[in-house]
Amino acid sequence: MWTDLEPIGRSASGGYRRFAWTREDHTLREWFTGECAARGLDLTQDRMGNQWAWWGDPDAATGSGVVAGSHLDSVPDGGAYDGPLGVVSALAAVDALRESGLQPTRPIGVVNFGDEEGARFGVACAGSRVISGALEADEALGLTDADGVTMGEALRSAGHPTAIGRDEQTLARIGAFVELHVEQGFAMADSDLFDQSRAAVAVGTDIWPHGRWRLDFGGIANHAGTTRLEDRDDAMLACAAAVTVARSVAAQHGCVATVGKLQVTPNGVNAIPSHVTAWLDARGADEQAVLAMIADFTEQVTGSAAQESWTPTTRFDDSLTARLNSVLGAVPVLGTGAGHDAGILANAGIRTAMLFVRNPTGVSHSPAEFAEQVDCHAGVAALTDVLRELAG
Amino acid sequence: MWTDLEPIGRSASGGYRRFAWTREDHTLREWFTGECAARGLDLTQDRMGNQWAWWGDPDAATGSGVVAGSHLDSVPDGGAYDGPLGVVSALAAVDALRESGLQPTRPIGVVNFGDEEGARFGVACAGSRVISGALEADEALGLTDADGVTMGEALRSAGHPTAIGRDEQTLARIGAFVELHVEQGFAMADSDLFDQSRAAVAVGTDIWPHGRWRLDFGGIANHAGTTRLEDRDDAMLACAAAVTVARSVAAQHGCVATVGKLQVTPNGVNAIPSHVTAWLDARGADEQAVLAMIADFTEQVTGSAAQESWTPTTRFDDSLTARLNSVLGAVPVLGTGAGHDAGILANAGIRTAMLFVRNPTGVSHSPAEFAEQVDCHAGVAALTDVLRELAG
Repeated sequence: MWTDLEPIGRSASGGYRRFAWTREDHTLREWFTGECAARGLDLTQDRMGNQWAWWGDPDAATGSGVVAGSHLDSVPDGGAYDGPLGVVSALAAVDALRESGLQPTRPIGVVNFGDEEGARFGVACAGSRVISGALEADEALGLTDADGVTMGEALRSAGHPTAIGRDEQTLARIGAFVELHVEQGFAMADSDLFDQSRAAVAVGTDIWPHGRWRLDFGGIANHAGTTRLEDRDDAMLACAAAVTVARSVAAQHGCVATVGKLQVTPNGVNAIPSHVTAWLDARGADEQAVLAMIADFTEQVTGSAAQESWTPTTRFDDSLTARLNSVLGAVPVLGTGAGHDAGILANAGIRTAMLFVRNPTGVSHSPAEFAEQVDCHAGVAALTDVLRELAG
Repeated sequence: MWTDLEPIGRSASGGYRRFAWTREDHTLREWFTGECAARGLDLTQDRMGNQWAWWGDPDAATGSGVVAGSHLDSVPDGGAYDGPLGVVSALAAVDALRESGLQPTRPIGVVNFGDEEGARFGVACAGSRVISGALEADEALGLTDADGVTMGEALRSAGHPTAIGRDEQTLARIGAFVELHVEQGFAMADSDLFDQSRAAVAVGTDIWPHGRWRLDFGGIANHAGTTRLEDRDDAMLACAAAVTVARSVAAQHGCVATVGKLQVTPNGVNAIPSHVTAWLDARGADEQAVLAMIADFTEQVTGSAAQESWTPTTRFDDSLTARLNSVLGAVPVLGTGAGHDAGILANAGIRTAMLFVRNPTGVSHSPAEFAEQVDCHAGVAALTDVLRELAG
């Protein structure tokens, strides 16, 4: 499966550019269709075009389905594992269960969620948000990409239905969802934290609270050569100070804070910037700590900070998490700072859990993202055990 | 004349977007053609398409021409005065000389230089650089704009000759060039520096040494939510520190330094930047001070600094400057941190001087750029006196 996926959407960086409802995405969906057909799974699409492949009849009893899977799209110049590892591992787990002769008592599903990364339209997990009702259809259809194409137009030109929305039938099929994902940090691989002989796979407990703030710094556009320092109002200086403050308050509160995106106006070499817009991404294990960090940050910087989003802690289902722990034995248990479709479904009241596969460098959203083959195999074995436990 | 110019290339900001060899530029050139025709001036174009209008025969005696003028193009969202004030004032000075009944002993020229701002192709003063040989034709023709259009293609599609290059005939006509320009700083309007009753017009002595450095900060792209602070290599932090250092070393050395342009990779809200490129613009009245500032700067920052350009002090012709001083009386005398076509011609060995008109706010390269009408009239009067002195 990895050999088939390897060339699709690969960019000059060695990473991937697999954006929702593009040609690359279409090729990935066709690949998924073929893999499901080869296994005799019944493929359906929900109202957002997310792909669901079933072993057994998900409509025989409400809430009976046990689903694994993830997504196949990527961030710009993303890695090979973020998303695909969960889909490939789910298909491999189905193979392993079949080979073991299992006759599942519940239907087993494999899902490929669309547009998880939000790389094209700016909203992460659009596929799971729409079918769970967390994102309204009208709002989703009106989102635009960098070329001004709306999501509605993109869905139409990709041949998808555009009558998108909350999908009760699909939600009713899901009794449990377990998303396997490469870890996107270095915690599992840190021998100070975990016994490395037991740390190939971890069980996720929750998604950290996280928020995004838009920071605006105003200045006065002026000539870089002729304007004396004392006559300047330079938006770049205020922004630079804020970047430094973000790091220091994050360290102080035990959280993480990142300024990853900037827009400079007019962005000319010989022009003092009249405006800089920056985005602050803030997360942490503890909600109060994140909010205290933001309060300290806004107190210390000039310019305005407008909250664009705030998601409180998302806890996965405690009893399901406990059951995974019991099946897998003494593996690491940890929260994550990243959002996932599993978090969206958990917030929609679906019993949800996550498995993480060790990332030896901690690098993600980058061509350098990596997981050892032996750890990936351990992930498949863990997911196989979990599906047998839940659907066997 | 201002009423005609006012709407051309005006943008939503209230400023101007008048880029070389665009429709807006074409309209401005047609306006110049019309104004020259109305005055019976003989219009010619040089090998770069710069427009020269002559009162009298510039080929009657080598080096006899006395030229005023400036440019009509603008930076993005530039002001109304930067460039046009010099062209309009030159035409108004011709009118005033005519009305006074002057029969000039030398030919008087008015020039409209093309692409002074370099807003489209990134090289300032392209018009004067090419005809003086400071910029080679091949290099100029191959410059590209943001859409990948080469200067050669832009010249061709604007109907200009593309056999561009050093223009001996044009250079031989110029005995003296006096460029009037709105001041781009606040020095003339600063009552601590100059008696404001005598500061409507100033004589320029030199263009400060200035240079441009490209700064590259490397990091490791990673997930903003899952990467612990201690595992991060964040290019934005290094860049923010450099922006702060640039300001402090500038203050320390009595120079100016500006980071006006940034490129962030991948520039995603939830991605730790793997690379930030920034440009440092550095200038000052004293060459050694500027170089000492750069040495301090590079010592204090991480990342690499590559010099992209360096222009030593450009002195205008001392005897010509002295003659202007003597004609105009006790007006301010000052150097400038901005580059001008006058500087390019001075470096090509042409006798050159500049006049500045007071800028009450010091703002330039901005829609807010302004000069009082009474000061603009004082500029025309000064230029009229200067042209009478040199060509009368």
